[in-house]
Amino acid sequence: MTTIATNQLTVPDEIRSRPGTARMLTGDRPTGKLHIGHYFGSLRNRVRLQNQGVDSLVVIADYQVLTDRDIAADLSGHIHEIVLDYLAAGISPQRSTIFTHSAVPALNQLLLPFLSLVSTAELDRNPTVKEEIAAARRASVSGLIYTYPAHQAADILFCDATVVPVGDDQLPHLELTRTIARRFNDRYGKVFTVPKPLLSPAPRLLGVDGRTKMSKSRGNAIALSATADETARLIKSAVTDADRHINYDPANRPGVSNLLLLIGLCTGQEPEQVAESLSGAADLKRTCTEAVNEFFAPLRRRRRELAADPAQVGRIITEGNTRARTIADDTLDRVRRAMGTFA
Amino acid sequence: MTTIATNQLTVPDEIRSRPGTARMLTGDRPTGKLHIGHYFGSLRNRVRLQNQGVDSLVVIADYQVLTDRDIAADLSGHIHEIVLDYLAAGISPQRSTIFTHSAVPALNQLLLPFLSLVSTAELDRNPTVKEEIAAARRASVSGLIYTYPAHQAADILFCDATVVPVGDDQLPHLELTRTIARRFNDRYGKVFTVPKPLLSPAPRLLGVDGRTKMSKSRGNAIALSATADETARLIKSAVTDADRHINYDPANRPGVSNLLLLIGLCTGQEPEQVAESLSGAADLKRTCTEAVNEFFAPLRRRRRELAADPAQVGRIITEGNTRARTIADDTLDRVRRAMGTFA
Repeated sequence: MTTIATNQLTVPDEIRSRPGTARMLTGDRPTGKLHIGHYFGSLRNRVRLQNQGVDSLVVIADYQVLTDRDIAADLSGHIHEIVLDYLAAGISPQRSTIFTHSAVPALNQLLLPFLSLVSTAELDRNPTVKEEIAAARRASVSGLIYTYPAHQAADILFCDATVVPVGDDQLPHLELTRTIARRFNDRYGKVFTVPKPLLSPAPRLLGVDGRTKMSKSRGNAIALSATADETARLIKSAVTDADRHINYDPANRPGVSNLLLLIGLCTGQEPEQVAESLSGAADLKRTCTEAVNEFFAPLRRRRRELAADPAQVGRIITEGNTRARTIADDTLDRVRRAMGTFA
Repeated sequence: MTTIATNQLTVPDEIRSRPGTARMLTGDRPTGKLHIGHYFGSLRNRVRLQNQGVDSLVVIADYQVLTDRDIAADLSGHIHEIVLDYLAAGISPQRSTIFTHSAVPALNQLLLPFLSLVSTAELDRNPTVKEEIAAARRASVSGLIYTYPAHQAADILFCDATVVPVGDDQLPHLELTRTIARRFNDRYGKVFTVPKPLLSPAPRLLGVDGRTKMSKSRGNAIALSATADETARLIKSAVTDADRHINYDPANRPGVSNLLLLIGLCTGQEPEQVAESLSGAADLKRTCTEAVNEFFAPLRRRRRELAADPAQVGRIITEGNTRARTIADDTLDRVRRAMGTFA
């Protein structure tokens, strides 16, 4: 049985044996401060792979939030916060290239040849587009959301990423990226690396409402940057149930089980094992608060120190953007030579 | 009545009085050698405006031919030929900036914010997309064709063009460009000039088949670069009719009338006036051949001279691309500042 709490990425042997030959692309839309669900779901795995020697690029997909007016109104503020979260979580600017894709024109240009390699029928099938249309109850989305899978292919392919950590839900996107890489190579000659998915089993952490996935927009999330007091208040408000006995039963007792999982993630125990040591709901919440605050204390301390020097964050992004531009310019040169366009 | 043969662009007074303040964007997809229909339909007007002092940029839309495999197989060859046509027709590399949009990443990046400002419903309404779907008898087009109007907006807006010469059929495209410019300015602050259409009445020149518009793909076109002999052969093969009397009647006698129009365009006469001096079909064709060959002789001579020095054409494109990149980099800087993305 795969342990839930200490879930490890299945690192392919080829990476484990020769980490220097692997390049990983990860990233996020800068929709706000990251929360502990992001941490256990992806951030800690990125840090682990980075520290194993995998060359890492982290894209802040700032063009993919433009249709959200609240975010677009303070884009650089949102970017600043997410970079603080990255650095605090252990993403190292020496080992990883953190960049915003809007600062890398040669990357964005790849959208054009890539769009020539996909049909509107393929874009129509994209589940994200369907979800956005359903969520907004509209017949139509923006052209930017519609072409998002091709732009994501540019984020991944510009840097010759060999692996992309993904959850199940993102597999169709990565498959389109692989299709684009193969079609380009077939048509114009080998330019792009066809990246492999690195399936990352993420614990399904619910929000403090005990009902839905932790998500900032649902207001049920514990931010990485929350103080110990804020964390305590949020966990105190967590929805549990009337049964005083504590046991791990995600299907029937989602609220209680979620706090057990969270304690397990923070202490390296299985949630069933955690349950055995607890005497009731008050004990559960007190233990959970302590576990979260203790686990994240070093990260939060680093985050406060980093936040005190905003210029440093600016420099880190600027350096990452410069590195990403160098990579993208080289890739675009190869692309243009392969396609036979004028210099 | 507007004369057909000597049709002049209606140059707005604001341009006529202060030509130095106007900037014009024109261009073509590099689908092959230009023909005399292009010359009378648009090229000569571009040259006229350029020579009136309007700052001119000419985009070779090389990304918009990628879905045509025959062209994509020799993209730089197609670009070379069209630049020869431009230069021979009088577009001056000193007065006009000739560039390929694939060489200007900051221009192409504008596609991203622009796509965020249009909906798929708006892209669906684009007549070009509908035509492409109908022409290819498919349910779907490439993502590149689908997003073409937004990319065209990038071609026009990146250089703050104040005027864009267009035919009636291109008005919907330019309207979308104007919409994108206005929406961007409303949302992020004034960055873009909202360009005005310069409606250019183009003579409707048919091909030598006397039936459809002159077009390379229909095999009914007289290339600008055709020799005098090739021109004679094409006009000799032109479809006319059995009536020996020559008169100008486009509705009932399209073949004959088209040759009269062509003579008129080359000699600065009205086609009715041309008809009066001719004695029959043979006379018509002989006169037409002479008129075309005489009119285009200087252009063709220049073209041969230029073709003898391919490196010069390469230099002209390289210089144009460098100039376009400088403009685009500056525009993208302003765009990114307005949008608040990180530097």
